[in-house]
Amino acid sequence: MSQNSKRILDCISSPADLHLLGKDELEILASEIRDQIVSTTSETGGHVASSLGAVEIILACHSVLDAPKDKIVFDVGHQSYAHKLVTGRQDAFSTLRSYGGLSGFPKPSESEFDVHPSGHASDSLSVAAGLAKAKQIRGSDERIIAIIGDAALAGGMAFEALNYIGSQQLPMVIILNDNEMSISRNVGALMLHLGNMRSTRGYRETRDYIQDRMESGGALSNAFAELGRRMKDSAKHMIIPESMIYEQLGIVCTPPIDGNSIADMIDMLNVVLPMDEPVLIHAVTKKGAGYAPAEEDPVRFHGVGPYDLKTGAAKPSSSKGAKYTDVFGTTLLDEAAADDSIVAITAAMEGGTGLARFHEAYPDRFIDVGIAEEHAVGMASGLAAAGLKPVVAVYSTFMQRAIDQVIVDVALANRDVVLALDRAGLVGDDGPTHHGVFDISYLRMIPNMRILVPSGAQELASSLHTALSLGGPVAIRYPRGQASDEVNGSPELLPEGKALKVHEGDHACILSWGRMLEGSLEAARQLEAEGIKAAVYDMRWAKPIDIDAVRDAASTGRIVTVEEGQVTGGAGDGVLEILAQLGLKPSVRTLGLPDEFAMQGDVKLLLADAGLDAASIANAIRSM
Amino acid sequence: MSQNSKRILDCISSPADLHLLGKDELEILASEIRDQIVSTTSETGGHVASSLGAVEIILACHSVLDAPKDKIVFDVGHQSYAHKLVTGRQDAFSTLRSYGGLSGFPKPSESEFDVHPSGHASDSLSVAAGLAKAKQIRGSDERIIAIIGDAALAGGMAFEALNYIGSQQLPMVIILNDNEMSISRNVGALMLHLGNMRSTRGYRETRDYIQDRMESGGALSNAFAELGRRMKDSAKHMIIPESMIYEQLGIVCTPPIDGNSIADMIDMLNVVLPMDEPVLIHAVTKKGAGYAPAEEDPVRFHGVGPYDLKTGAAKPSSSKGAKYTDVFGTTLLDEAAADDSIVAITAAMEGGTGLARFHEAYPDRFIDVGIAEEHAVGMASGLAAAGLKPVVAVYSTFMQRAIDQVIVDVALANRDVVLALDRAGLVGDDGPTHHGVFDISYLRMIPNMRILVPSGAQELASSLHTALSLGGPVAIRYPRGQASDEVNGSPELLPEGKALKVHEGDHACILSWGRMLEGSLEAARQLEAEGIKAAVYDMRWAKPIDIDAVRDAASTGRIVTVEEGQVTGGAGDGVLEILAQLGLKPSVRTLGLPDEFAMQGDVKLLLADAGLDAASIANAIRSM
Repeated sequence: MSQNSKRILDCISSPADLHLLGKDELEILASEIRDQIVSTTSETGGHVASSLGAVEIILACHSVLDAPKDKIVFDVGHQSYAHKLVTGRQDAFSTLRSYGGLSGFPKPSESEFDVHPSGHASDSLSVAAGLAKAKQIRGSDERIIAIIGDAALAGGMAFEALNYIGSQQLPMVIILNDNEMSISRNVGALMLHLGNMRSTRGYRETRDYIQDRMESGGALSNAFAELGRRMKDSAKHMIIPESMIYEQLGIVCTPPIDGNSIADMIDMLNVVLPMDEPVLIHAVTKKGAGYAPAEEDPVRFHGVGPYDLKTGAAKPSSSKGAKYTDVFGTTLLDEAAADDSIVAITAAMEGGTGLARFHEAYPDRFIDVGIAEEHAVGMASGLAAAGLKPVVAVYSTFMQRAIDQVIVDVALANRDVVLALDRAGLVGDDGPTHHGVFDISYLRMIPNMRILVPSGAQELASSLHTALSLGGPVAIRYPRGQASDEVNGSPELLPEGKALKVHEGDHACILSWGRMLEGSLEAARQLEAEGIKAAVYDMRWAKPIDIDAVRDAASTGRIVTVEEGQVTGGAGDGVLEILAQLGLKPSVRTLGLPDEFAMQGDVKLLLADAGLDAASIANAIRSM
Repeated sequence: MSQNSKRILDCISSPADLHLLGKDELEILASEIRDQIVSTTSETGGHVASSLGAVEIILACHSVLDAPKDKIVFDVGHQSYAHKLVTGRQDAFSTLRSYGGLSGFPKPSESEFDVHPSGHASDSLSVAAGLAKAKQIRGSDERIIAIIGDAALAGGMAFEALNYIGSQQLPMVIILNDNEMSISRNVGALMLHLGNMRSTRGYRETRDYIQDRMESGGALSNAFAELGRRMKDSAKHMIIPESMIYEQLGIVCTPPIDGNSIADMIDMLNVVLPMDEPVLIHAVTKKGAGYAPAEEDPVRFHGVGPYDLKTGAAKPSSSKGAKYTDVFGTTLLDEAAADDSIVAITAAMEGGTGLARFHEAYPDRFIDVGIAEEHAVGMASGLAAAGLKPVVAVYSTFMQRAIDQVIVDVALANRDVVLALDRAGLVGDDGPTHHGVFDISYLRMIPNMRILVPSGAQELASSLHTALSLGGPVAIRYPRGQASDEVNGSPELLPEGKALKVHEGDHACILSWGRMLEGSLEAARQLEAEGIKAAVYDMRWAKPIDIDAVRDAASTGRIVTVEEGQVTGGAGDGVLEILAQLGLKPSVRTLGLPDEFAMQGDVKLLLADAGLDAASIANAIRSM
């Protein structure tokens, strides 16, 4: 597995082994873990920068805690690679994020040391609050730590949790992993300067207690002096107000300490863990720490594909067509040039949703609200009420955070809001927390909503053009990665609720949504070779569904619907509804993701597993 | 309409008319509006306490604003009756909350003065932020005010908005309607004391500007002295920390002023409206102000049915069976006595969800997180991870706020969490924002989830007992109001995914969920008189759906599914899925709420409109 058989890492089979190591040995271990993370992820890809930044925090926690009795709850969790490596998963580490391999996130079914399937930002504090409340109820003595990044603190859920934790004085430690990178400069007034302490009495007592302990410790005072120097000069320091919000919620906060110093982290944990109240440790870390290419470009190394170990350069990927994200970004730029009422909103995903050029071209009409999807959608409603045309671009899976706002603020209000859902369908290596597979179901139930599911690059451009022309609430959902085509002309105005017949046949009919079209056409070709003529429709709309297309399909006697999303409540159900209403009774198979959480791995493999590849589609028709 | 034809109110046909009134006349108008609110709601029921408390805030706003160009965004919006009365809706006011009548909430389709269909807490700031951002983009000069209660500020969405508003310095005024009642004492560290000002420079300048203006004003300084006295002695003052969170988010806050003084409110609005930055006016109001019974019992008068004008006593309602809410509360109490791992969680709905006695009996195992559904569900996940059995009891419509948490934190984590969704289905007078009609669709799409839909009181008791025994994620959804039966025995363990055949017949089959059973049985009786023998199943589970029952139903050749929820994506779709899988082809009609937002009014009328009454069910079968 490793070139170096003398590593400390190879002797660590459980976190209890860390208790035997001195601080110097832990530093060596940290370095070995960094090497392992970089060498593995250069092959597998992964969340490199944040995992490198959090190595010392994780080792410090495990060296003072007694897991799994004591609990670490990761927020988002893509920083947890070091945790995986010291909890008995070195041997499997090379399978990281692959089909059947180790998850890139904590996953309870993978290890008893993983408390929670982290993946969506801002939930760690609530989960940890539940653990702490359980401890209170039972009077038990396990220790609970939540590790959360600065960006995730902007999410409303984290605030709700802090509000509760503070009021109830739940016994838990929050480690704020402040890596100075994850909040865009323009996002959020919630910037922190924890050094400015409040003077309320209970707080002062606690602070003095911490201070006393630290001064007697020695090591930390040096660290503070050094940190003071670093912080003083940092650009960040200049833009944050001298204030501290968490104290006012009843949570004691430490001064900023060096989160990349194991010794400092251990000292601080030893001070605060015995306290029977909520404490926030402000740990300042460096994203990508220890690997130069990631330190230099932490944004690219946030989530990265395979890369060259020496240079950090991305390994070439097969490029067959346009990237959906780019098509969206370019088309929106064109539309915005022609219509100055168009406004783009994203939630900490400017790059991921293809809006960087829009931001540059129309800074006044670009809005990044940070990790705050609820506010993004609510604000879109207000912008539309004022006559503008907001386009909310987020990943499909994260729009799950704002379904109520889509229902009430957008659909009931019937506002001209376009939802652009990137990463819809299977996303691959990130697995179940990141697949965008529920959107058709949760959008289809909402009155006034229309849903476009483009089958390629050109169709995406036309879908966006159409959505902006239509008025009212419209969603467009499109996958991660590359289409098989390029945009090769002006976007068309697609007739509302009308499908496109792309292949003729009268023995059966395949109704296909989105990029399932490719496999559907391939299935039709396979069947044709056997003398079975299957028509194929690119359905384009998951709502409203083209009744004429369904009627035409029913006339063949055999219908297969194919969509890249949960089959329960999906577009196939919409077809069944129409058939029932029309009283038509063809044989029908609705293909989509089965009623379980889709796993991680190569999308082609996952599609085949789900029966969504060409062979399965053809088989479905043969079996009818 | 009114007994008194000389009222100022009768001369107000639009808010512009308020510009002509002096402060003394506005005070008289306020008093007339109070009388009108009380006399109307004593007949119609409604949100009395909060509407009485907000009269002066609303009149002050309209007397300085120029609506509809200027905008008032109400949070929740049930405090907006005074707004309705001065925006040309006096004549229709007696139809408040009735079928076809005025909405109890702001409703854009009802009036150009209603900006937003308020109804779910904490969204006003985002919507107003959108309006303010649009103003910035266009350089226009309309003024924007959001009015939000103290309880709604605990919602994560409001925090996300404040974070954005502060960072972008959006030009808008937030009126915090602090009625000192709506936060339970134990909920949230977010208690406010706005008098304690921060010393950062930008803030101090603004504060001084306000202070100068106020001192020159005269009237306010007296008010402050008085308020200071009041606040000093108030119990609330004793429990709030001396701190102010909003300033730290970049939002200037005024000292607390008397929100029931029109003069003070007008003076303050005149000071802050010209400012080109976000300002929060801390208006302290009295819930129920001006109507003694509501002042004395504001909790009961939060939302109330018809009552005796003089005494405030509730008018008797027809009582045929047990209230679902009570059955839930009593059953949970029994279960908790036998199992000390049961924990109850609610989100500011202790009374509404029937948990008051549980709170009393098991204070350590009762959790009220305030208006914070996301945290409620996230924390349930943590409690379950620690081996406890949390039951999250909220209204169905509000669970829409936490669908992502149900997906990731509960279902993917596969935790033993019970979701108790009260007010599922049509709620009646509160209308579209409050109907709990999406839950079957949004829960059914989630893997690992089970959904129980009890048809009455006894079935609810058995459903809760079953859910607590099962383990894993289970939801129970049950309606507002009274069942037609009582709990008449011990709760039964219901076999998972098994329906109950309650009526025999082989000409057709009705598959019924929840309280639709009554109409379904009545339909079967009507048909029987015509010689059509229709079987009826109480389906009990919306997921998993009983395949044997569906197969049996299909054997009759005609199936009607009946559910009280959106038909799109609902349980009927689940039946269609099973039939398609089995290759069975009976005629099917799926009955449920059509794909539009259900309106307000008497539930019986609404059900008939939706084709969910006995006559419609019978007709559906006749027409097949």
